[in-house]
Amino acid sequence: MSKTEGSNAMWGGRFAEGPSAIMREINASIPFDKALWRQDIAASKAHAAMLGAQGIVAAADAEAIIEGLERVAAEYETDGVPEDWDLEDIHMTTESRLAELIGPASGRLHTARSRNDQVATDFRLWVRDTIDQIDRGLEALQVAFVSRAGEHAGSIMPGFTHLQTAQPVTLGHHLMAYYEMIARDRSRFYDARVRLNKCPLGSAALAGTGFPIDRLMTTQALGFDAPTANSLDAVSDRDFALDFLSATAQCALHLSRLAEEMIVWASQPFGFIRLPDSLSTGSSIMPQKKNPDAAELVRGHAGRIVGCLTALMVTMKGLPLAYSKDMQDDKPPVFEAAGLLALSIAAMEGMIAGATFNVERMRGAAELGYATATDLADWLVRKKDIPFREAHHITGAAVKLAESRGVALDALSLEDLQGIDRRIDDDVYSALSVEASVAARCSHGGTAPDEVRKRVAEARAELGIEP
Amino acid sequence: MSKTEGSNAMWGGRFAEGPSAIMREINASIPFDKALWRQDIAASKAHAAMLGAQGIVAAADAEAIIEGLERVAAEYETDGVPEDWDLEDIHMTTESRLAELIGPASGRLHTARSRNDQVATDFRLWVRDTIDQIDRGLEALQVAFVSRAGEHAGSIMPGFTHLQTAQPVTLGHHLMAYYEMIARDRSRFYDARVRLNKCPLGSAALAGTGFPIDRLMTTQALGFDAPTANSLDAVSDRDFALDFLSATAQCALHLSRLAEEMIVWASQPFGFIRLPDSLSTGSSIMPQKKNPDAAELVRGHAGRIVGCLTALMVTMKGLPLAYSKDMQDDKPPVFEAAGLLALSIAAMEGMIAGATFNVERMRGAAELGYATATDLADWLVRKKDIPFREAHHITGAAVKLAESRGVALDALSLEDLQGIDRRIDDDVYSALSVEASVAARCSHGGTAPDEVRKRVAEARAELGIEP
Amino acid sequence: MSKTEGSNAMWGGRFAEGPSAIMREINASIPFDKALWRQDIAASKAHAAMLGAQGIVAAADAEAIIEGLERVAAEYETDGVPEDWDLEDIHMTTESRLAELIGPASGRLHTARSRNDQVATDFRLWVRDTIDQIDRGLEALQVAFVSRAGEHAGSIMPGFTHLQTAQPVTLGHHLMAYYEMIARDRSRFYDARVRLNKCPLGSAALAGTGFPIDRLMTTQALGFDAPTANSLDAVSDRDFALDFLSATAQCALHLSRLAEEMIVWASQPFGFIRLPDSLSTGSSIMPQKKNPDAAELVRGHAGRIVGCLTALMVTMKGLPLAYSKDMQDDKPPVFEAAGLLALSIAAMEGMIAGATFNVERMRGAAELGYATATDLADWLVRKKDIPFREAHHITGAAVKLAESRGVALDALSLEDLQGIDRRIDDDVYSALSVEASVAARCSHGGTAPDEVRKRVAEARAELGIEP
Amino acid sequence: MSKTEGSNAMWGGRFAEGPSAIMREINASIPFDKALWRQDIAASKAHAAMLGAQGIVAAADAEAIIEGLERVAAEYETDGVPEDWDLEDIHMTTESRLAELIGPASGRLHTARSRNDQVATDFRLWVRDTIDQIDRGLEALQVAFVSRAGEHAGSIMPGFTHLQTAQPVTLGHHLMAYYEMIARDRSRFYDARVRLNKCPLGSAALAGTGFPIDRLMTTQALGFDAPTANSLDAVSDRDFALDFLSATAQCALHLSRLAEEMIVWASQPFGFIRLPDSLSTGSSIMPQKKNPDAAELVRGHAGRIVGCLTALMVTMKGLPLAYSKDMQDDKPPVFEAAGLLALSIAAMEGMIAGATFNVERMRGAAELGYATATDLADWLVRKKDIPFREAHHITGAAVKLAESRGVALDALSLEDLQGIDRRIDDDVYSALSVEASVAARCSHGGTAPDEVRKRVAEARAELGIEP
Repeated sequence: MSKTEGSNAMWGGRFAEGPSAIMREINASIPFDKALWRQDIAASKAHAAMLGAQGIVAAADAEAIIEGLERVAAEYETDGVPEDWDLEDIHMTTESRLAELIGPASGRLHTARSRNDQVATDFRLWVRDTIDQIDRGLEALQVAFVSRAGEHAGSIMPGFTHLQTAQPVTLGHHLMAYYEMIARDRSRFYDARVRLNKCPLGSAALAGTGFPIDRLMTTQALGFDAPTANSLDAVSDRDFALDFLSATAQCALHLSRLAEEMIVWASQPFGFIRLPDSLSTGSSIMPQKKNPDAAELVRGHAGRIVGCLTALMVTMKGLPLAYSKDMQDDKPPVFEAAGLLALSIAAMEGMIAGATFNVERMRGAAELGYATATDLADWLVRKKDIPFREAHHITGAAVKLAESRGVALDALSLEDLQGIDRRIDDDVYSALSVEASVAARCSHGGTAPDEVRKRVAEARAELGIEP
Repeated sequence: MSKTEGSNAMWGGRFAEGPSAIMREINASIPFDKALWRQDIAASKAHAAMLGAQGIVAAADAEAIIEGLERVAAEYETDGVPEDWDLEDIHMTTESRLAELIGPASGRLHTARSRNDQVATDFRLWVRDTIDQIDRGLEALQVAFVSRAGEHAGSIMPGFTHLQTAQPVTLGHHLMAYYEMIARDRSRFYDARVRLNKCPLGSAALAGTGFPIDRLMTTQALGFDAPTANSLDAVSDRDFALDFLSATAQCALHLSRLAEEMIVWASQPFGFIRLPDSLSTGSSIMPQKKNPDAAELVRGHAGRIVGCLTALMVTMKGLPLAYSKDMQDDKPPVFEAAGLLALSIAAMEGMIAGATFNVERMRGAAELGYATATDLADWLVRKKDIPFREAHHITGAAVKLAESRGVALDALSLEDLQGIDRRIDDDVYSALSVEASVAARCSHGGTAPDEVRKRVAEARAELGIEP
Repeated sequence: MSKTEGSNAMWGGRFAEGPSAIMREINASIPFDKALWRQDIAASKAHAAMLGAQGIVAAADAEAIIEGLERVAAEYETDGVPEDWDLEDIHMTTESRLAELIGPASGRLHTARSRNDQVATDFRLWVRDTIDQIDRGLEALQVAFVSRAGEHAGSIMPGFTHLQTAQPVTLGHHLMAYYEMIARDRSRFYDARVRLNKCPLGSAALAGTGFPIDRLMTTQALGFDAPTANSLDAVSDRDFALDFLSATAQCALHLSRLAEEMIVWASQPFGFIRLPDSLSTGSSIMPQKKNPDAAELVRGHAGRIVGCLTALMVTMKGLPLAYSKDMQDDKPPVFEAAGLLALSIAAMEGMIAGATFNVERMRGAAELGYATATDLADWLVRKKDIPFREAHHITGAAVKLAESRGVALDALSLEDLQGIDRRIDDDVYSALSVEASVAARCSHGGTAPDEVRKRVAEARAELGIEP
Repeated sequence: MSKTEGSNAMWGGRFAEGPSAIMREINASIPFDKALWRQDIAASKAHAAMLGAQGIVAAADAEAIIEGLERVAAEYETDGVPEDWDLEDIHMTTESRLAELIGPASGRLHTARSRNDQVATDFRLWVRDTIDQIDRGLEALQVAFVSRAGEHAGSIMPGFTHLQTAQPVTLGHHLMAYYEMIARDRSRFYDARVRLNKCPLGSAALAGTGFPIDRLMTTQALGFDAPTANSLDAVSDRDFALDFLSATAQCALHLSRLAEEMIVWASQPFGFIRLPDSLSTGSSIMPQKKNPDAAELVRGHAGRIVGCLTALMVTMKGLPLAYSKDMQDDKPPVFEAAGLLALSIAAMEGMIAGATFNVERMRGAAELGYATATDLADWLVRKKDIPFREAHHITGAAVKLAESRGVALDALSLEDLQGIDRRIDDDVYSALSVEASVAARCSHGGTAPDEVRKRVAEARAELGIEP
């Protein structure tokens, strides 16, 4: 695994023994932090350019370093990052290769910085890039919701509370609920991005540096909004990683809710949905099975992602300032959560875009289960001026009667209904169909097809989609 | 515990049996959700006023309801909220008392709303109020940091990484690191507040309502920015609670780091700090003890607060839309975390404001431990144009020599130093004092006393404190 | 809240200031640790008796203390434990009341012990008692499973994987799966009980004591198996609380799975189950609803219980020896989790015992969904010696054909089947009924009714229930 | 990454489309479950042997399968497991290679089993093997504690509570506290092993099988104690993984406490310990640094391991029976936690075995801080029959006086002490040395050197180490 056992040239001559095998293994972060290579090269180039511009290193050396870094980057692009545990991490791996390529001038790159501010910078850049990628994925997912919601603005399904049929809603309205959740997720990632976009480079080990560096120059070169304000904080802070993980976990929880619904809807007794073949699997033993594996994995991944958030929170708890090595454990949970979420978003987009909704079955289910009972109660309030609580009791009696007969509410005769309350008249039947029910709920944000279409149109505008 | 065993008049006549004792206990949320009473009254008043204004209920009824609610509020203020499990929750408790006070008109209050949108509204209002309170506490804590940092902008202490003496820093710089963390916490709570400030009232059970309600009116009356856009989402969403808990957990983690430092600093071997007597305790068995209990409790509370976040995340995982009763478990973790954080902030403010820093001891510790070794390396780079990596090796040899003699770096003779590297000259001693070291680190955000004073001045301006 | 503001007589005269209001609040554990009063009195009595027997305090004093403690216990039993924050915790509250009742002799009770070993002892006793109560609850729940499984050993339902109909199983078999889970839960609590049953009393503050105490005497008096072996460990250890919480969390996860099934089964599209009215609720707005609230709360409580485990794990992370005040935060999560689990178990017992299973509907669902496809594949392997993988392909083709026709597998004609594979003959229809399917699965632990009855009989024997 | 894009031959011909790229990625578990290859081969061999013995497959086929599996194992041993995403998991990878090697007979291996019972069996075997390895590591760590404790049974150090000097203890006693923790960890892993050691093989997909299998034969061949009792439970159960993770997390928390102590002890102000060079690192910028990285990583790993436990708990919450694909997410957290713990144990063993304790510095610290104040109080109780609470007050006054003079307790003159309480006489000085203090605490489990030596001797016997 390692070419240079026992001779880490970077640490200097102070140690009598080479690091033992265990130490090499527990200490090496290169197996995971090699993912930072693009960011590490970019930050080193910005740092070298600044050192040259400020005259801290000779212009020729700065140029040599930058060109050397570009050669290293080209090698990584082609061949991948070599994983030599003795070089510990991506920073030393790159610097070591740079030294081979350009010789002693490479030693000037680490002037006026430390691994502490270097890794903080690289990791922020990585998280920022990842936020941008996730945002694109979430936008695509929103497009899928809006598109299918537009198709189904008038498709009636049972709305559930407690997974009990509650009131009829439209499928479009249901899908747009997820559009709203994802909008909040995007705003949460956006907030995280704003808060992280400060540049720690130049904070050095913990105390800043005496070299006449220009932090604004590196800040701008790397696309940050400002330099961080306190060097101790800058190297100790992993809020940006926690912000990212919190946003990731909340997004994963939203997707887990959608996944649960897809799994339940795809069950034979529901039969509301047929998932795309490309995102389902068969069984090794039961030939008839078509399993909603992708939905289940998305639901399961929510667990792992919450675990990632917990992991970093526990790791950060009680750490004194400034940098402690515990913080090296910041990356695995962030990388894991990011990968799982990206995959979950893509899978969900595919499922929403590709699902076949069985609208007849949904409508049929909405007609069962006395879903329009509230409409009866509301009719009593509106048309007969009966206080709601009393109307609720009357309706309860009507449901009880219908249930005992095994029929729907609108199958009760007017006589039956008047037996419960004299004030009921023929107009009541206008309120008891599922179409009437959804059309009536035209309050802002309600399930009426026109309301849904209005919101879909707004959402298209928000997303910049042509109507 | 309950006055009206077996007769929950609100659910109507559908159930053959009364809820069993277990059900009453598992179902009752009044023991904790009574904390929402102010918000519940406020939201009900806004709803009643809107119902009246829209002519959905008669103006006289609306007025009677509002006056009745004010009487209920006055009773709660004086006598507390009665805890009758049969009335389940704060909403039914209030409505039941309202019915006793004003009679049947009270039954009209629940027109065009449901407990689902009602509780979502109340809870958002409660979280918003709590964010505002926490923000005030955090601001006071920032004031304490700024004030003590101003005093100690020039007090030298060892800066630690890995809890090893690394480089000298100033105490003021160290305290200002926490100022920055708290600033991020405040921005995180601010973001959470913006995202939550949408009004769910009017979403009704899940689908909106057919009554001609005016959602903008209630939105404005309750200080929300806009109504929520999707009724299914509005009653299913607990993002605002998770945002709050995430922000709370991150803030608690920051305080746990400060608490850890106080505990370590207050230990006899460190002796850096003397905590205020009012926030320490003695021992029941060891009369000499002065324990940093408040700091330990703050550190411990971080655990419980992370547990609260985990709790709600697990609870929300995989819930189908819309409201499920699982979501009743949203409140205990939020209430618990809010209380623990508020107390932690207040305790930390007291400790920072009241701590006595032993600056002599801190300075002494900074002088031990070869804290200026980096300064030697930097001197070699700057004055002798030696590449950093080589300078690092030379310094390592100097530290090794000093260590073997048991002396400080600046107690090595020029001869000794030149024995290590010929290029070293007398000027080197100017770099080896702790004062020189901190003064040199004047990069933006560095520990130099002037930099710290500059940042303290900015912070005072941010906080609106007179200089 | 407190009678004796600013005068905590227990800490001695060392503090210039009284503890501030914040300190009183953050420090006071009496609001929750009063739950330990029975255990505290028991442990103090055992300690006093030992002090008397060893001649460490005069026999008369020991007697006076014991009688005094019994009077305190009687007062608590009648009037509850007073909650005076200045007395901080249950230990000081009791000792303070004891001093009022018996005078200065009370001061000898704290000889040779400390709050550190006292609270460790009390809390272990409380957890042990709670384990015993939970075990009784779990046993009752097992009885409910066994009883209903006996009724339904032959009732056919669809067995699900991925919530897709997979193979027919019996309801009795399904219920017995939970019997096995609960058996593991009980064994886990049992293991936790064995591991905790060591007595820390006598470990004193952290180092043991110089008084000639007899630890075996208190160990036996309190029903422990042995004294703890290391005083530092004894006062620092909260493994017993974590063991309890781990067992509690796993049990809660099992119940959450059952709760999920009940919620899904109670939905209108499934309609497999009718939950007892006494454990369901209605809706404040939808009169027809019958919500599975208790099941949802049990599922939700799993979240809070996992949060409790996380909380204590985070709190314990990185604490140096011996006692740290952070550990005072051990009790709230344990108390909360214990209460939530006890309620969840009771609710589940009620739901299992009281549920009405719609066996016709279950059987009907099993007949749909090609649940006997595996039986066809197995028939091909067994009767026609076709390798399983090939049989799987043939069956897949048969399912595809049946699906395209919208019929069940056994509605395909022999001609159709032979069109897929020539080797199929008339005997195949014997394998395609759901009864044949379940009866065939008579491997050990399989779903065949006779296997289920055998396991039910074993379980009755394990539980000591008469057949 | 994949050779056979779009043609997964195992699922049969039912799918119109091949699995999409996303599906292949989210579905593939081979990147991690290849770690199960040894267990998968072993379980398949046992299954094949049983199928042959029972005549379910021809003896020649069974033999061919077994020999083929051995060839596959040899290939894996030499070349590693190929990672073809289209073959999804280790089970299909192995079966596919087997088919290439032995032809159609390989198709008979999957008779009477399913991936559901197969993976449950493999994973149990893997966890069991890992428990055995961890147990060996923990035993070695206990040996290190016992060995160093034996050396330092009489070395005096300050015992801390609240990280404040409390009472003198011996270093040996402190180290033996960890011996006890690890003993509990081993017992916890042992309990987990007993509970897991049931064989799920033969449970098939979920319902058992109609083939005349002999579950006892496979049970015994694989070293299990018994077959599982319920097929639905057997394929749905991941308790064994959660038991493993709970035990792993608790062990990691113990190690995090030790790590915290090492980090604090290695700080310059403490200076109690010098960690072995081989488990420390230097700094890239500060040449004098010797960082306790391994201890910090062990402390940090506790975070990730708690995260792994949380992950699987969240994933399992609310899953209906039987197998759901979410459960594929059981392996990454278990593999991660196992690897992190194994490394942490090894690192800690190295640190304990290789640490140099600065016993002079420890002893010096014990003499400061009024660590013998309790001894003064105890002396007053024992020799002067003063109630403990009064003795505590007198001692508090003595500490206050000594503190105001800046001297140790035993530097107060008799006159001074008598000025506080007349009853004090010259004998008091016998109680005030740290040696007298530790020697006095000879209660069972106390810190007296003789007690420590007794416990070390017992521990050696428990570990089977020659004295």
